[in-house]
Amino acid sequence: MAAQISFARGAPSLDIVDVEGLRAAAESAFRSDPAGMTAYGTAVGYRPLRAWIAEQHGVAPEQVLVTNGSMQADAFLFDALVRPGDTVVVERPTYDRTLKSLRQRDADVRMVELEPDGIDVAALERVLIAGTAPKLAHIIPNFQNPAGYTLSAAKREQLLSLARAFGFTIFEDDPYGRLRFEGESLPTMFSLGGDVVVYASSFSKTVCPGIRVGYLVGAEEVIARITKLATSAYISPNMVAQAIVFEFCRSGALERSIETVKDALRERARTLCEALTELLPEARFVAPQGGYFLWVDLPRGTDVTRLFDAAARRGVQFVKGEDFVLEGGESSLRLAYSGVTPDEIEEGVRRLADAYAEVAVMAEPAAGAPAG
Amino acid sequence: MAAQISFARGAPSLDIVDVEGLRAAAESAFRSDPAGMTAYGTAVGYRPLRAWIAEQHGVAPEQVLVTNGSMQADAFLFDALVRPGDTVVVERPTYDRTLKSLRQRDADVRMVELEPDGIDVAALERVLIAGTAPKLAHIIPNFQNPAGYTLSAAKREQLLSLARAFGFTIFEDDPYGRLRFEGESLPTMFSLGGDVVVYASSFSKTVCPGIRVGYLVGAEEVIARITKLATSAYISPNMVAQAIVFEFCRSGALERSIETVKDALRERARTLCEALTELLPEARFVAPQGGYFLWVDLPRGTDVTRLFDAAARRGVQFVKGEDFVLEGGESSLRLAYSGVTPDEIEEGVRRLADAYAEVAVMAEPAAGAPAG
Repeated sequence: MAAQISFARGAPSLDIVDVEGLRAAAESAFRSDPAGMTAYGTAVGYRPLRAWIAEQHGVAPEQVLVTNGSMQADAFLFDALVRPGDTVVVERPTYDRTLKSLRQRDADVRMVELEPDGIDVAALERVLIAGTAPKLAHIIPNFQNPAGYTLSAAKREQLLSLARAFGFTIFEDDPYGRLRFEGESLPTMFSLGGDVVVYASSFSKTVCPGIRVGYLVGAEEVIARITKLATSAYISPNMVAQAIVFEFCRSGALERSIETVKDALRERARTLCEALTELLPEARFVAPQGGYFLWVDLPRGTDVTRLFDAAARRGVQFVKGEDFVLEGGESSLRLAYSGVTPDEIEEGVRRLADAYAEVAVMAEPAAGAPAG
Repeated sequence: MAAQISFARGAPSLDIVDVEGLRAAAESAFRSDPAGMTAYGTAVGYRPLRAWIAEQHGVAPEQVLVTNGSMQADAFLFDALVRPGDTVVVERPTYDRTLKSLRQRDADVRMVELEPDGIDVAALERVLIAGTAPKLAHIIPNFQNPAGYTLSAAKREQLLSLARAFGFTIFEDDPYGRLRFEGESLPTMFSLGGDVVVYASSFSKTVCPGIRVGYLVGAEEVIARITKLATSAYISPNMVAQAIVFEFCRSGALERSIETVKDALRERARTLCEALTELLPEARFVAPQGGYFLWVDLPRGTDVTRLFDAAARRGVQFVKGEDFVLEGGESSLRLAYSGVTPDEIEEGVRRLADAYAEVAVMAEPAAGAPAG
């Protein structure tokens, strides 16, 4: 068993990356379009990949910008739409890098509670009626990072109505959408009402992170503005990587890779849920239907910072809940099951439960008995 | 003969890109380090490539940041060092994208005349003594874009002295340094006095532009600051592309590629100079010793905007001199010979001379005879 077991990083283990498929895609790309992939290209991205993505989303290629990873796409979108002081609604909790990126831009970040079926739309409506006028609402609709929750169909429609009524843009940040391993897929908000939505996704979770290919889909006018920012940032994104992704997609390797990833994630998520239920019954969580993450609430008063240290001493890493909120989150944590095997998961939860027992004993000396 | 002959884009023609070497490097990279190249990595870049670059420059790896192209490196450096209103010295003329990038950041851009042996150091000194206190001086030391000129050894030392005396940083922007096809290489300013220099280069001209791999070398403290900006912009740069470049470098393909590129550029530059001398004797230029570009001054009063249109009607493209300066440049132009074959160069200059004759006749109706 590994000395270190990391539930911290939202990244796949190497065994679910199709390295041989990538090698073959590179080979094929260098043979079929050497001119296109070795030249500068333009900021819109490698045109065949852009056209392929456009077709997947049923839009014109002019509505697509392919970037060096979707984080870069987010940064461009924020640069284009968010001025210092502008209000941006985000989910509570939300992706820590998004929070950081918005705060770096001096945005006025308003967190709205995330429920197991997605952002609390009624609470958002109250905030809007009370006069908050956001420029943007950042929503991770599927298997949210960090919570693993999915926005319901009804709430997707409600959010679109609010965006139209109150004049803000929905930033539908969807890197995990293709990784549903249980239940039925829901339509993207972009497909339901594209005029108020900018959609982002990535090949990091379906091909591999190191390939750094993400993209935006939106109205032509917004995409054109962002393309100008991209041109001045880097002339053009990585043509070699994007040509490899294109070959990976059109050869059918992508669909096979997604099946491999989903099978592994299904097993890992199930193992994690079972291990938590058995070994750490104090953990409250919603079993995820896809994606990489599971959010754990521990009993109020649990000091997750101490749990973090106690787990680290046992070789187990996770991310503290407080990293995903502006305040609070002290008794919550995020477990990523994407990079750990079922065996590691069982052992990791065992150590985590042991760490919890230590922390819980110290927190409640009056209770007299060890917890967990 | 091609209908369109472009002297506009500073990019190599496909015949001098080692596509087969790149394909082999990709194959080799996927076999030798699948884990390293498919995972996220960190913002410093693919570590084996970073270490290779550090060794080339005789520095510690912590002094190197590998980015998605050197344009992105420039942008990070400006973000780290240049605040709105800060003075930045640039050469006149200079790379149009650098000018744009600095103006977007509301820098106070001061152009100092570029002479055939590099920036007019005496003029710069006068400006400094008069009280201008730049944060940064942006210098393209070798085969400058757009002029093709090279900074002399003496001026390199003088610039370093000025930087030390007046407390500014030299940004040594050197994508063409390895492409010297005549004469002796000169030491980089970074190697002569690294403490006041941040050095940038790229594999765009020695491997291919579509691979988008550039880098910065500087003091550890500056590199650490810029690494933070890179992390929040894109988590990590393209690991797949950087691993391919690393294999290309360590296999020896890089050195072979540089020889191929230099041989082609030598012939293209010579052909261009000979054709200009023969067919457009009004053109004043300095024969380049390396790189991609040749700067042409036409007789004062020549309207290069009209020449541009007249050339375009004949299927010839170039970039107008005025794009590389804040004001002036109306009778100058930049010819890139990197993307055109010798045959195309001869035919292109023939058409350009023909366009010049049309414009010159219209400009000087009193002269009575066609020019050129």
